[in-house]
Amino acid sequence: MTTYPDDGLALHTDFYELNMMWTYWKQGIAEKNAVFECYFRDLPFGSGFAVFAGLEHVVDYLTHLQFSESDLAYLQTTTTYPPEFIQYLRDLRFTASVRSAVEGDLVFNNEPIFQVEGPLAQCQLVETAILNMINYQTLVATKAARIRAVVGDDALMEFGTRRAQETEAAMWGTRAAYIGGFNATSNVRAGKVFGIPISGTHAHALVQAYRDDYTAFKAYAEANRDVTFLVDTYDTLRSGVPAAIRVAREMGDKINFQGVRIDSGDMAYISKRVRQQLDEAGFPDVKIIASNDLDENTIQNLKMQGAKIDTWGVGTKVITAYDHPALGAVYKLVAIEDENGEMVDTIKLSSNAEKVSTPGKKQVWRITRHSNGKSEGDWIALADEDPRELDSLYMFHPNYPYINKTVTDFDARPVLQPIFDHGKLVYQLPALTDIREFGMHSVDSLWDEYTRVLNPQDYPVDLSQKAWDNKMNLINQIRAKVNQHRA
Amino acid sequence: MTTYPDDGLALHTDFYELNMMWTYWKQGIAEKNAVFECYFRDLPFGSGFAVFAGLEHVVDYLTHLQFSESDLAYLQTTTTYPPEFIQYLRDLRFTASVRSAVEGDLVFNNEPIFQVEGPLAQCQLVETAILNMINYQTLVATKAARIRAVVGDDALMEFGTRRAQETEAAMWGTRAAYIGGFNATSNVRAGKVFGIPISGTHAHALVQAYRDDYTAFKAYAEANRDVTFLVDTYDTLRSGVPAAIRVAREMGDKINFQGVRIDSGDMAYISKRVRQQLDEAGFPDVKIIASNDLDENTIQNLKMQGAKIDTWGVGTKVITAYDHPALGAVYKLVAIEDENGEMVDTIKLSSNAEKVSTPGKKQVWRITRHSNGKSEGDWIALADEDPRELDSLYMFHPNYPYINKTVTDFDARPVLQPIFDHGKLVYQLPALTDIREFGMHSVDSLWDEYTRVLNPQDYPVDLSQKAWDNKMNLINQIRAKVNQHRA
Repeated sequence: MTTYPDDGLALHTDFYELNMMWTYWKQGIAEKNAVFECYFRDLPFGSGFAVFAGLEHVVDYLTHLQFSESDLAYLQTTTTYPPEFIQYLRDLRFTASVRSAVEGDLVFNNEPIFQVEGPLAQCQLVETAILNMINYQTLVATKAARIRAVVGDDALMEFGTRRAQETEAAMWGTRAAYIGGFNATSNVRAGKVFGIPISGTHAHALVQAYRDDYTAFKAYAEANRDVTFLVDTYDTLRSGVPAAIRVAREMGDKINFQGVRIDSGDMAYISKRVRQQLDEAGFPDVKIIASNDLDENTIQNLKMQGAKIDTWGVGTKVITAYDHPALGAVYKLVAIEDENGEMVDTIKLSSNAEKVSTPGKKQVWRITRHSNGKSEGDWIALADEDPRELDSLYMFHPNYPYINKTVTDFDARPVLQPIFDHGKLVYQLPALTDIREFGMHSVDSLWDEYTRVLNPQDYPVDLSQKAWDNKMNLINQIRAKVNQHRA
Repeated sequence: MTTYPDDGLALHTDFYELNMMWTYWKQGIAEKNAVFECYFRDLPFGSGFAVFAGLEHVVDYLTHLQFSESDLAYLQTTTTYPPEFIQYLRDLRFTASVRSAVEGDLVFNNEPIFQVEGPLAQCQLVETAILNMINYQTLVATKAARIRAVVGDDALMEFGTRRAQETEAAMWGTRAAYIGGFNATSNVRAGKVFGIPISGTHAHALVQAYRDDYTAFKAYAEANRDVTFLVDTYDTLRSGVPAAIRVAREMGDKINFQGVRIDSGDMAYISKRVRQQLDEAGFPDVKIIASNDLDENTIQNLKMQGAKIDTWGVGTKVITAYDHPALGAVYKLVAIEDENGEMVDTIKLSSNAEKVSTPGKKQVWRITRHSNGKSEGDWIALADEDPRELDSLYMFHPNYPYINKTVTDFDARPVLQPIFDHGKLVYQLPALTDIREFGMHSVDSLWDEYTRVLNPQDYPVDLSQKAWDNKMNLINQIRAKVNQHRA
C-alpha cells in the first residue's frame, strides 16, 4: 500500500468511467447535458419497502470531488491520456444538479431514487461512488427497519463492527441502522462522528481475565456505576446470573444494576429461567439483553416462544445485510442533449425484460389518500407532469396495465428533492435524529399489508400514461432500427 | 457528520472494549501480560480452505494507533472516565507483540490465525478493528480463490465497487480478490494505492449517448487503441456484434480489437453465437468477456454448457462474499498473567459446544509429507512444543479422537509468523504480487479433495496431545467449580 497525503475519492470509480470521459472529451461531447437516474430492480429481504440512506456520504463526496496531483500522476503513468485531458481532469469540479430521495424516506423498486443532470462526462465519473454508497446504506437501513418492525418499542443495539465489511461499512452501516430505527451503536467512532448514542459494557474476556464470574463482576461494579453483566462465560444459570445477583446485593445503591446479557445457548429457554432467577432475587426491573446472530426472523420466533428478552443486540445480520448483501441499484442514462441541443430520451434494452430502463427525466410522486394520509402508491411521471394539477389520477401497473385504479381524494408529494443546483449544494442536511424520526414516521403511512416482514403485498409503483407511452415508443423505434439493420 | 482533522481509528472499537480497559486500569491489571487469539469456527461457502488476508491493513492500524485530542474530548463528554484514565489513553501506543498467518497463506477453521500478546488493556482495545479487517478480507480472498479454482487460466476481473459495502470494502476487497487469484480490478484508486492492474472500457451509457451501437463504437475506436465493445445495449446478435465487426473492419490496424463484452441474457447460448459471428468475420482471436452476477457456481455451469467465454468479470458475488457475507472470526483470551506473575491459561465455556475456546498460547504447524510436499494437516500445539524435534507425529481429531494417524516422513512449518515484537514492526510486508504468487502456490500443496468447490473433504486440524489435555483439564476444573458453587 502506498499512502498519498492528497488522496481523495476522485479515483474511487471504475476505470471504464474514465475511459468514457476521455472518449466524450475527445469527441467533443463531454459537456453535453445528460440525465442519469439510479434505481433498483428488486426489494431486498422480501421486504415490501426500502428506506433510503446514503445521501450524506454522497453529498460529502460530490462537494469534495477533485482530482489530486497524485491521482493525475497515476493516470499519466498507467494510461495514454494526453496532457490536455489530464488538465481537463485537474480543473474538473462537480457542476451538475442532483435530485434525490431524502434519507429516511421510503423508496421502492423500479423508481428513480437519485438523479444527476449536467455535463455528460461528470455524470459518468460519479456513477460508481454514488452507487457504492447508496446501495449499501439503503440496504442496511431497510434491514434495520424490518428488525424495528418486529421488536415494537424494545431497545435495539447495533453491535456488528467486527463483522462489517471493512471500516467504512461499520461506520456508515451503523448510521443506516440508526436511521432504520436502531437506538444505539457499539462503535465509538460512529458515536463521535455521527452523534449516535453508544452502548456496551464488557465481554467474556473480562470474566476470563478474573477466571471467575463473581470476581469479574465485582471488579466491574467497583469501576462503573451503570452495570450490565455478561453471564454466559462459564454457565449462565448456575454461575453467571447467581454471581450477578450476589454482586448486586453486595454493592446495593452503589451501582445501577441495569441488565444481564446472554450471548449463546437456547435463548428462549434460558431467558425465561434468567427472568425467573432475577425476579425471585428481587430484581424485576433488571433487563435481559440478548445477542447471537439475531435478525427479524429469529427475533420474531423468540417473541412467539415467549422469550423474556427486553433489549436486542444485533450485529452481523444487520451490518452485512446477511440474507441479501447487495441492493443492486443501477445508474442509467435516461436523456441526453442531441446534435441540435435538444434533449432526447434514451433507453437500455435487454433480452432480460426487467433490465429494460424507463426513458426520460422523471419525478416520483408519493400518492396518499387525503382523508387518512395512507398510501395509494407511487406515480412515476415525466418531469413536466404534476399530479397536483389533476382532480383524478389514473394509476396502472406498467407491466400489467389491467391492474389499474383511478384515485380522486389524493395528496401528491414529490419524492426527489433538489440537492445540488449546478454544483451548488441547495439542501440543508438534516440532523440525524430528524432523519431517523422522519424514517420511522414514513413507515406509518404504509398500510400494514406493505410493512409486514413475511410476504407483503406489492406496493403500487405506477408509470404515468405519458411516461409509459414514451417508453413503448422508444422500444418500438429501436426495434425497427435493429430489424432494418438486419434486413 | 462532523469531520475532525485529527480523526483516526483509535475509536474504531466497540464501547465495551473501552469500558473493560477502564475497569482493568482502575483495578490495576491493565498492564498484566495477556494472550488473545483469533480464529473462526466454520469455513465459508462450504469451502475446504480459506486464504488469509487483512494483515497489511492491521499493520497500518496498529502502527498508527493513537488517541487523538478529538477522540479524548469526545470520551470526556460521553463517559465518566476520570482525567487520569484519559491521560493514560493519550499516552497509549501499541507495545504488544503480534504473530499472524501471512497474507495469501491457507488457514482453516478452529485454529489460531492471529495472536496478540502484551498489556491486557491494549490487547482488548484492538480486538474490534482487527476482526473487522481480517474477517472481511479473508472472506473475499477465499471466495476469489474458489472462483480462480474453476476458471483455470482464464482472466478474472473484479468489477464490484458499486455493489461493495461502502468505500473501504471496495478497496480492500478488490485487493483480497487479487490475492485470491484475480488478475485486475475496475477500481482506479485500488490501482493507484495497491498497484493492482486496472481494467475497463465502456458501459451501456456510451452507446446510449450516441443512441446507436455503430456510432458509439466508432467514436470509442477513434479515441482508444485497445478496444473492447459492450455489445448488449440494444440487441447483442443483431446489432451489437455486427456493429463491432463493422467498426473493426473500418478501423483496421488503427485499433487492437481485443474483445466484446456481454452483460445480460443467456450467456451459454449467446456466447456461442457471438463466437461464431466473430470467427466467421475473421476475428478468431477476439475475446468474449462475460459479466452478470457470476461466481464459481455459475461459471462452472457455463463451462459445462460449453459457453465460449474467455474472460470473466465478477462483481457483486466476490466483493460482498454474497453467499456467506461474514466470516465470523472471534478473538479470545487464552492466557493471562496471574497475581503471582505466572501465565495461566483461560477458557470460554458455552452451552453451544463449538463456542468452547482452546486455552493456552499456541502455534499452528502445517504438516506436509516430505516426499511429495502434499498436506497431511495442521497440528495445533502449545507454544513450547516443536514438532520438528520429533521423528513421528501423532495426529488426532480434537472432537473425534478415534480419527487419528501417525506420520513420520513429514515437514512442519509454523503458520503464525512474528509481525510485531513489543510494538516494533519486525515483519517486512511483501509486495502484493508476491503475496498473490504465494497464495496461488499454497493452494497447490493441498490434495484436490480439499480444494474442490463442492463438498470438499475436511482438512485435518488437529490438537497436540498436550494442548488437548490442557483443554480437558481446564473444562473439568471449571465444571467442578461451578458445581461446587451450586452445591
